[in-house]
Amino acid sequence: MSPSAAPLQGFPAKATIIEVGPRDGLQSEPRWVPTEEKVALVNGLIGAGLRHFEATSFVSPRAVPQMRDAADVLSGIDRQNGVELTALVPNAKGAERAIEAGIDAMVVFMSASESHNRKNVNRSREDSLAGFAEICRMGEAAGKPVYGAIATSFGCPFEGDVPVSAVVDIARRYRDMGITTISLGDTTGMATPPLVQERCRGLRAAVPDIDITLHFHNTRGVGLVCVYAGLMEGVTRYESSIGGLGGCPFAPKATGNICTEDLVYMLDECGVETGVDLSRLIPTARRIETAVGHPLPGQLMKAGPRLELHPMDAVATANG
Amino acid sequence: MSPSAAPLQGFPAKATIIEVGPRDGLQSEPRWVPTEEKVALVNGLIGAGLRHFEATSFVSPRAVPQMRDAADVLSGIDRQNGVELTALVPNAKGAERAIEAGIDAMVVFMSASESHNRKNVNRSREDSLAGFAEICRMGEAAGKPVYGAIATSFGCPFEGDVPVSAVVDIARRYRDMGITTISLGDTTGMATPPLVQERCRGLRAAVPDIDITLHFHNTRGVGLVCVYAGLMEGVTRYESSIGGLGGCPFAPKATGNICTEDLVYMLDECGVETGVDLSRLIPTARRIETAVGHPLPGQLMKAGPRLELHPMDAVATANG
Repeated sequence: MSPSAAPLQGFPAKATIIEVGPRDGLQSEPRWVPTEEKVALVNGLIGAGLRHFEATSFVSPRAVPQMRDAADVLSGIDRQNGVELTALVPNAKGAERAIEAGIDAMVVFMSASESHNRKNVNRSREDSLAGFAEICRMGEAAGKPVYGAIATSFGCPFEGDVPVSAVVDIARRYRDMGITTISLGDTTGMATPPLVQERCRGLRAAVPDIDITLHFHNTRGVGLVCVYAGLMEGVTRYESSIGGLGGCPFAPKATGNICTEDLVYMLDECGVETGVDLSRLIPTARRIETAVGHPLPGQLMKAGPRLELHPMDAVATANG
Repeated sequence: MSPSAAPLQGFPAKATIIEVGPRDGLQSEPRWVPTEEKVALVNGLIGAGLRHFEATSFVSPRAVPQMRDAADVLSGIDRQNGVELTALVPNAKGAERAIEAGIDAMVVFMSASESHNRKNVNRSREDSLAGFAEICRMGEAAGKPVYGAIATSFGCPFEGDVPVSAVVDIARRYRDMGITTISLGDTTGMATPPLVQERCRGLRAAVPDIDITLHFHNTRGVGLVCVYAGLMEGVTRYESSIGGLGGCPFAPKATGNICTEDLVYMLDECGVETGVDLSRLIPTARRIETAVGHPLPGQLMKAGPRLELHPMDAVATANG
């Protein structure tokens, strides 16, 4: 019965996992992670079967020092076997650097809420969109696809609830620029199953030709529940972070991204194929925990595989 | 949109939460929690709207020293407002003590797997069942209902997969003794959504007259996903532990019981009524974290409520 041979009723047969630990995870780590360690992390994950990575970001090295080695990280990764490396690009300068470094696809990003966009990138949403048009032209000229991310898609830490229309409007603008892969970011862990339903259905109705990617945080404990809700909507693309690397800027002790190995475990058990070998993910998660020097929130790396048997004389059990 | 006004499609309109932190949570805490603190914990949770508690266990004080004040804990709890206090009773002696202490209902427990039952209570499953018959007679004489728990219902740390027939067979034997409220325990965090479906459907087919209670651990990160799967099966009773109090005997750093406030958050957001006030649960979770002297795994107690707004000048945000 484990892992399940057929997908749960209503679930897709396969899902694609986009590993964002090297970018969304590491960027909030105060301790410098050496370039070789970043490269070894991604190469280890490729060895476990992952193929899609948000590998770095071409932002200002002053703003995000941890990403200052973006080009070197890209050049160190073993890109055989259909590996796709993407990077965040905030502006034309970043896009230029990303293309020069040989990125496979660029990710532009803005927030669904005006105040978060201003706080995050210091400009209005309209100004963000205007800038993306230029990046799309650069991408087209270089033969590099551009993907679009929408932060605060499920709620904003400054404004609270975010109307579905704000997300749909940005998705339409993205689509009009030729962006057909769109990620909904749960920036501070405000996504819930009803919001997942509502937003997925809203996008399907308004821009049926786009691929939806869901990016959840486990900040309030329901990250994988939101994936479950997304699977029931037929969404096949999920972003996650090895070990649950990354945090929440609003609550120092809270968790950020959902954890890749816990996600793979859930998908395996629900019969959704990922191509990832869970047993090879766990050691990589433990290694990155050592590299960052503090405990990570991933559960499987602590508990071990489901069917790892224990000797009867090993521990005292407790009733219940 | 938050909390949701109507339950998600297919979900029950209401759910009952049985708080097991005072028993399943505290029993694994090495540091003695004073009786007054235990009582204050339960009374605080009653103040937040919880009404059902596995309050303690009448086991040997030598085996579980943390539970040695079982009778005193019961006598300190404010039992107005329809509060129901249950306790684990391993044998006739425990039942006698529980009845004497004025328990509302007794919980007998055994494992679905033979090796775990032997390891946990040092007897065969058949011997466990034989002993429960006597407890049921005592309960009937005293006018106290008896509930039945089945540990390792979703897998056994010694044997691996547990066949659904093992769970169903025990449920039938319980039902034949007059036990109509049966809890499936996910003792070491091996439950998955397909197993939840299979076991709930198996019980519904074989013993349709019983009330199913689900007791999940978050040891592998999917505890609330399993609740979600249970809700889709129409199950309305869930056991959880405030703050996620309690651990896993097989992995010192792994988590145990699902967390009550995270569960209430999910149910609130999915439109399932619990009668519990989340804003009053969070301070209680933080208080018990102080009492046990180490961080607890609950997420909401760290992140705060979903719609708690943050001032724009408070923090640096990070793109994505």
